[in-house]
Amino acid sequence: MSGLVFDFNNAMAGMVSHGFEIQQSDEAMVAKAHSAMQEGQMGFRELPRGQEDILDDIIDTARDVSERFDNFVVLGIGGSALGPIAVYHALGQQSDINFFVEDNIDPERLNRTFGGLDLQKTMFNVVTKSGKTSETMAQMMTVAGMLEKAGLKLSDHMIATTDKENGNLALIARKEGLKTFILPSNVGGRFSELSPVGLLPAAVCGIDIRGLLQGAAHMDEVCSREQNNPAAMFALLHVMGMQRDMNISVMMPYADSLKFMSDWYAQIWAESLGKRVDNDGNEVFVGQTPVGALGVTDQHSQVQLYTEGPFDKIVTFLKVDKFASELKIPKAFEYVQDIAFLCGKSFSELMAAEQSATEYALCVADRPNISITLSEVDAFSIGALLYFFEMATAYAGEMMGINTFDQPGVEEGKLATFALMGKQGFEEKKAQMDALSKKQDKWIMQ
Amino acid sequence: MSGLVFDFNNAMAGMVSHGFEIQQSDEAMVAKAHSAMQEGQMGFRELPRGQEDILDDIIDTARDVSERFDNFVVLGIGGSALGPIAVYHALGQQSDINFFVEDNIDPERLNRTFGGLDLQKTMFNVVTKSGKTSETMAQMMTVAGMLEKAGLKLSDHMIATTDKENGNLALIARKEGLKTFILPSNVGGRFSELSPVGLLPAAVCGIDIRGLLQGAAHMDEVCSREQNNPAAMFALLHVMGMQRDMNISVMMPYADSLKFMSDWYAQIWAESLGKRVDNDGNEVFVGQTPVGALGVTDQHSQVQLYTEGPFDKIVTFLKVDKFASELKIPKAFEYVQDIAFLCGKSFSELMAAEQSATEYALCVADRPNISITLSEVDAFSIGALLYFFEMATAYAGEMMGINTFDQPGVEEGKLATFALMGKQGFEEKKAQMDALSKKQDKWIMQ
Repeated sequence: MSGLVFDFNNAMAGMVSHGFEIQQSDEAMVAKAHSAMQEGQMGFRELPRGQEDILDDIIDTARDVSERFDNFVVLGIGGSALGPIAVYHALGQQSDINFFVEDNIDPERLNRTFGGLDLQKTMFNVVTKSGKTSETMAQMMTVAGMLEKAGLKLSDHMIATTDKENGNLALIARKEGLKTFILPSNVGGRFSELSPVGLLPAAVCGIDIRGLLQGAAHMDEVCSREQNNPAAMFALLHVMGMQRDMNISVMMPYADSLKFMSDWYAQIWAESLGKRVDNDGNEVFVGQTPVGALGVTDQHSQVQLYTEGPFDKIVTFLKVDKFASELKIPKAFEYVQDIAFLCGKSFSELMAAEQSATEYALCVADRPNISITLSEVDAFSIGALLYFFEMATAYAGEMMGINTFDQPGVEEGKLATFALMGKQGFEEKKAQMDALSKKQDKWIMQ
Repeated sequence: MSGLVFDFNNAMAGMVSHGFEIQQSDEAMVAKAHSAMQEGQMGFRELPRGQEDILDDIIDTARDVSERFDNFVVLGIGGSALGPIAVYHALGQQSDINFFVEDNIDPERLNRTFGGLDLQKTMFNVVTKSGKTSETMAQMMTVAGMLEKAGLKLSDHMIATTDKENGNLALIARKEGLKTFILPSNVGGRFSELSPVGLLPAAVCGIDIRGLLQGAAHMDEVCSREQNNPAAMFALLHVMGMQRDMNISVMMPYADSLKFMSDWYAQIWAESLGKRVDNDGNEVFVGQTPVGALGVTDQHSQVQLYTEGPFDKIVTFLKVDKFASELKIPKAFEYVQDIAFLCGKSFSELMAAEQSATEYALCVADRPNISITLSEVDAFSIGALLYFFEMATAYAGEMMGINTFDQPGVEEGKLATFALMGKQGFEEKKAQMDALSKKQDKWIMQ
């Protein structure tokens, strides 16, 4: 059990010249957001403490699955996939089951995954909040066909995670008698990792899901403070950044295990805060683009740009104090003086030195940066980290005066897909699209 | 064998209101860049046709390796890793060998990879142009120690790819008698995928490396044209974008096989164009941040921001006409009318419809976007694609008046790492760093 340490020093004007100086008006914005957060009814905030009645069911189901099956395949996309992937990679696998998350519809990839499965020994978990996601429903239909062909019963090989009553998946689950876990209707997909959406896959992998929730509950306390609140501070600095065209938020973990946290963060930050209109309906076109980078790897890819390019970024480092295993660099090639300094050092020392060095290089180049340190990567710290970013996102949305929890911008694409796939009732949309697709040859090259 | 089709229509002002209108001054900029490209001596341009004398050696070595070994492990980072990873994922594995690229120094990950290897059946390929990269040298020292402990001879299990004579690796290779492939001194790491850096790993995986080079040679012709030159056009639109604060370049392949192309592009675009000074030494702080997204997956994560957020992006789609395999969506759950439209369709149809729909949604939201279509993913088209982005990067650098081929911004971090690791001669740097690290408690929260 370990909390997180947040260090905002390198984002402040006293430390880097492009850093931030907090004015009274900024403090007022924080206070207002804080009140709103206290009063607001946000479904995701009930998850850390409000699921005691279903945890045993999740854990029992997971134990049963991992005892009886060799493979567990999540069919889901976006909020149904990014959290399970991030937690799986962070905490590794404690059970023997093979874990897959199919979050795309690429036929080559689906053939590769499905083709390698012994269906008899495979449990599928179909996850969609709306129960209508075309990609996930198409996968589910395909799996149903495969199971039928193999003479296997759907309800023996499929668990549904969806809304209590609405949507196609809830309907199918009732009709087919699928074991079903409920995603509360007041929890959005991208805020659902600490609901059954994320908890069942984690439990199947043998991860301590009570530990995840305890970390989240701890962070709920920390991020409910009026003062000294890291979620409010993270949000404030990023919102101040947006106000001066720092339109990029880089998430740079220095640990392979946390690589996919960046992808999960990318969704919650992008989809929650990227909005055309504010709460009063004014067109604002706000948002900040999340970028994932991995330390030390991306020092050799992105840091040149981060230190010398435009002043358009805030970089957040995720640091780990203690790795789960260690490796020493032995004496070797002693005739090469230039690498002698590495002899006898450990890889985690080198990793920590490179992180500090990159932080230093950003500071010298006047680039604001933040660091979040996990003393170690465990269920508690990962639960805390997930919940921290959920709270920071909600705070930022309040400060920006936008709706954090909707996603109207994806609607257009969904309708267009229906039109192109020939769904009934979308003939007019199809005609609109055809009218727009007049291309000029001179801009096509080959 | 298939070329690429570039469609720039959706980036033009005639199509989307935030699109581009090319002025005479822009055309003049292109013409100037074109002359510079014709005259310039760029090492990477010699690779498509200039390696006939070493190709047989690479192919013979690769055949020998894949016959005698079970595992092939690349030790490299940045330009030594991103290309091999991208090509491996694009073209898959045609041989039986297990292929690893160790491009980080995370001890947990190294233990996992190294711990699973039968050293007797493993060949390592150490790749560093400078021959000094701390991460790669530390890995190499560790592997040397492992081989020694196992009583195995270094030269039987290690191939070096490095500079002809300079650097620690060249020295070690000579002293230990390692089989060595040369990275030409006028080819930078991030432009080296079509040199032995990328060709040897590709050949070991059974990939047709002559096909890669043929694709590149074809694209060299296409991108040398004075008119109708897609590399110049891609560069121009992005440079025009940067001039109006479109500081983000999104690369969004609609194929899992091309996912890692985005990471490779991210390095070449970021590190080449992210520069503090121009060729005249003026401080310019230019660059554009590359962002990788995967279709359709990231429609459920990033497209909300792309369609509704700031007008700060140019999105490039990578499309594939024909997937290597197909999968049909069967009839299922016929009592659910809402998903009936999916029955009997194929996943590649759905994928193509979603890509068109996203393109349409971006256009409707007035966001400039470009598409590059591969008729299929094969060695020729991948070689062409890699070379296209190399040319586009070089064109953009010319238009921006910067040095495309250096990376002065990573130096500070390297020196700081030496200081922190106690390397001799860096005591003063260490003192400078200590002086700077005065932190205020009030900005540390936990």
